[in-house]
Amino acid sequence: MPHTPETADVRMRGFARRTTVDDALKWLDEQTERLTGVAVPLATEAVPLDGAAGRVLAVDATSPVDVPAFDRSMMDGFALRSADTIGASAYNRLEIGVIGKSMPGRPFSGTVGPGQAVRIMTGAPLPDGADAVLPAEMVEIGDDRILAQGDVSPGKHVGRIGEDIAAGTVVLPAGRVLRPQDVGVLSSIGTAEVPVVRQPRVRIVVTGNELLPAGSKPESNKIVDSNGPMLSALVRRDGGTAVHPGVVPDEPEAILEAIRSEADVVLVSGGSSVGEEDYAPALLIEHGELAIHGIAMRPSSPTGMGRLDGRLVFLLPGNPVSCLCAYDFFAGRAIRVLGGRSGDWPYRRHRLPLVRKIASAVGRLDCTRVRVVDNGAEPLAIAGASMLTSTTRADGFVLVPPDSEGYPPGTEVDVYLYD
Amino acid sequence: MPHTPETADVRMRGFARRTTVDDALKWLDEQTERLTGVAVPLATEAVPLDGAAGRVLAVDATSPVDVPAFDRSMMDGFALRSADTIGASAYNRLEIGVIGKSMPGRPFSGTVGPGQAVRIMTGAPLPDGADAVLPAEMVEIGDDRILAQGDVSPGKHVGRIGEDIAAGTVVLPAGRVLRPQDVGVLSSIGTAEVPVVRQPRVRIVVTGNELLPAGSKPESNKIVDSNGPMLSALVRRDGGTAVHPGVVPDEPEAILEAIRSEADVVLVSGGSSVGEEDYAPALLIEHGELAIHGIAMRPSSPTGMGRLDGRLVFLLPGNPVSCLCAYDFFAGRAIRVLGGRSGDWPYRRHRLPLVRKIASAVGRLDCTRVRVVDNGAEPLAIAGASMLTSTTRADGFVLVPPDSEGYPPGTEVDVYLYD
Repeated sequence: MPHTPETADVRMRGFARRTTVDDALKWLDEQTERLTGVAVPLATEAVPLDGAAGRVLAVDATSPVDVPAFDRSMMDGFALRSADTIGASAYNRLEIGVIGKSMPGRPFSGTVGPGQAVRIMTGAPLPDGADAVLPAEMVEIGDDRILAQGDVSPGKHVGRIGEDIAAGTVVLPAGRVLRPQDVGVLSSIGTAEVPVVRQPRVRIVVTGNELLPAGSKPESNKIVDSNGPMLSALVRRDGGTAVHPGVVPDEPEAILEAIRSEADVVLVSGGSSVGEEDYAPALLIEHGELAIHGIAMRPSSPTGMGRLDGRLVFLLPGNPVSCLCAYDFFAGRAIRVLGGRSGDWPYRRHRLPLVRKIASAVGRLDCTRVRVVDNGAEPLAIAGASMLTSTTRADGFVLVPPDSEGYPPGTEVDVYLYD
Repeated sequence: MPHTPETADVRMRGFARRTTVDDALKWLDEQTERLTGVAVPLATEAVPLDGAAGRVLAVDATSPVDVPAFDRSMMDGFALRSADTIGASAYNRLEIGVIGKSMPGRPFSGTVGPGQAVRIMTGAPLPDGADAVLPAEMVEIGDDRILAQGDVSPGKHVGRIGEDIAAGTVVLPAGRVLRPQDVGVLSSIGTAEVPVVRQPRVRIVVTGNELLPAGSKPESNKIVDSNGPMLSALVRRDGGTAVHPGVVPDEPEAILEAIRSEADVVLVSGGSSVGEEDYAPALLIEHGELAIHGIAMRPSSPTGMGRLDGRLVFLLPGNPVSCLCAYDFFAGRAIRVLGGRSGDWPYRRHRLPLVRKIASAVGRLDCTRVRVVDNGAEPLAIAGASMLTSTTRADGFVLVPPDSEGYPPGTEVDVYLYD
């Protein structure tokens, strides 16, 4: 079989020596660290408060204001001078005149003097002159007066200016993945737009002459692209924006042009191995850097990683299961970190006994799909990396490290759950 | 204090008897069961494949086609008649003529006869006449012939029609929350649009004359709506669509009109208790049903639930912490179930020892916010339900059931983590 010159290098290297998963992750983390700098990943952009949940706060959020901006009542009752209630009890009811009311958003505009009270509702501003709130249940209510049946100390049932948030307080730290309640707090300090980390732009380059674009009906000799839609959804899950305009022809020029799209990260699916039509590795060697090609793992061993004009480029196997696994191990981690998130898997971990053995070869990391059954984790029988349905039938996966030959039944293992 | 007739009923009932959380959940689950019917929640809508991840599949997805639609090679090598390799070994190399090649998407159009082979790549269609693939590494390759150095049995290294998915197979069951790989499988069977459960429409009705709309700067006597943006984000997290046009005036007519919006669920924040300006409970009594008002829990005891013209209506306390907790306990559950999801909390659970005691009163369920510290869960000192920052400082919460007076330090408790 003749080799074109540019593929010869790759083919000669082949996968004779595969990089360990640990070394591959080390290289990857160096890249993302270089790209994100010490603290601030990518650039900052402003988004409306309403779309901020789930985004990553780019800078510390500091309150410019006191919240609340006024002293307020924490009870329904009567704002008054606490001194006027001294000695009041059910047996010694003290009469106090009611001179008005303070409602939330509609404060009493006068001043409370000695022997005077203002009816007040929870959340309403405390009138000038008053220093406490006598709760309604400690009062017998008349028309324009009350009989106090208990006493309150100064400040009682009053929420002070800035009690929730004092001006100048950092309410949320940079790097926070914003929760619904965080959005509430940002709103309360007067935030209209939130500075967040820009989402990594991810170009998805799916190659393969046998592929029909997603949305097509499969036909004789052709299969429909499944990796593109899957990768798009994975990228979005991990906080990136996905661009996947369609299947790219298996031609070096077309693939190179696609890799050179405006993007932070490029995912090439298919043509990543050492076959005759696997152009992407040679393109990286020629135009950028192919740092890693072939990884000691199963599935996904024909995975590559490199750089081209500042972009991180991942060469993912065309087999859907390998593609998913390679994405999860490497590309997803990079996308999450570039977007200011934790590199850790978004999968919950659950410890379960194996109901059947897992066999593995020493020297490679195995990622075995399992179903969760009543009493444990059951490895799926199907081995084929082409079987995407094995990942939809699976509830998660189990890792077998390179130094292990596998696990006998009954071994307690960590299952990473897909949902 | 004079009562308007419609509030008098509510005020007289007051919260003298509070519903237990269990009874409130029982009522709620009866409502969602009634609304969702036995199996199909809400209606079905079709969404493009590209937006289907995270949505809930409305009907079983059955493949109309075999995947793959053709026999294909699982290796790079030579498609041939397996009988021609019988007896081949490194010491007995058998010559076979090469008559063409089959590439992915570009099949060989002829037929493989006895003594003939076709070069084939992984994923390429198996030519007529061939019944196996001899891997490249078992072959010495010449110009128009090969020397077979090993034998293969019939079907070896061949992926059969329908091997991944046979036509008529249910690939994903109704009710599935679609994962990225599920979207891949749907694409592979030729899906362009996916039938999913319609998202519950949730109208958010925030009332309070003291409130400025989100995006405003706080000013004297007024605070900015924080519940609206928080609830919008919670609703989206739980699979609903949120409509929150702004703050609704504290007037019965305005509140009633807002509750009557086009929606499946209405969340009223503020005016839910038994105060003079708490109009919403009376509106439900007059125009619909106020099934539950006052719940034996802390925070969130002034929570109400009812119905109006087929909508589920939740009366959530205006205090942000109570609002969040009442949403999480009741409204969020209903929204998730109506959208075809699990009613369970989306929070991970983690077992940790308490580093300080939690005190609670018998007869009510307590939801205590905690921070996760090195060696356990630390209850937050601040008690005020108005302190939204206590939910942003918290990492999660711990429940103390109604029959408990609390937990001493060192007790192992389940912490529900906010992220």
